[in-house]
Amino acid sequence: MQKQENPTYLKAITIRDPSDIHSIKEDIKKGMILILRVTPLAQKDVEKLRKVVEDLYVISRDYNAEIARLGEERIIVAPPRVKIWKPDYKLK
Amino acid sequence: MQKQENPTYLKAITIRDPSDIHSIKEDIKKGMILILRVTPLAQKDVEKLRKVVEDLYVISRDYNAEIARLGEERIIVAPPRVKIWKPDYKLK
Repeated sequence: MQKQENPTYLKAITIRDPSDIHSIKEDIKKGMILILRVTPLAQKDVEKLRKVVEDLYVISRDYNAEIARLGEERIIVAPPRVKIWKPDYKLK
Repeated sequence: MQKQENPTYLKAITIRDPSDIHSIKEDIKKGMILILRVTPLAQKDVEKLRKVVEDLYVISRDYNAEIARLGEERIIVAPPRVKIWKPDYKLK
């Protein structure tokens, strides 16, 4: 019988404000898979979005998480045990 | 030291034709996390999309995978070891 592993959580949320980055950082530390919708912030303030995305890249690097764009609206952050495979990106 | 686990793959693909369901079924069997963009098929043939989504629900049930909508464009399928957490859905 297979050993029961702790589940990995996949969380789909919307970033509405740059301060959301704090709870997102905690989730990345916990090894969650995050699907972050960024369009509401992009429509409100592109400069703030740019800063949030920069922060996401730094945090992801610190925790060996992988980060990828999902279409125009979303960003995926995946912990080290999850590998992102993106055929769609090659077609664009 | 932590035991090295096999990675889980997260695959973001677009369903363009009902026949894509065969390779998707194989990926679900392998325990991959799938993020399936369904809009191209929805625009082409709503009836075919309906059938594909029905098939996805049956396959997911057979392999204890969890299935959820991600916005208007995408469907997530997650293997048993991944739990989907969706605060956004509660707000709608």
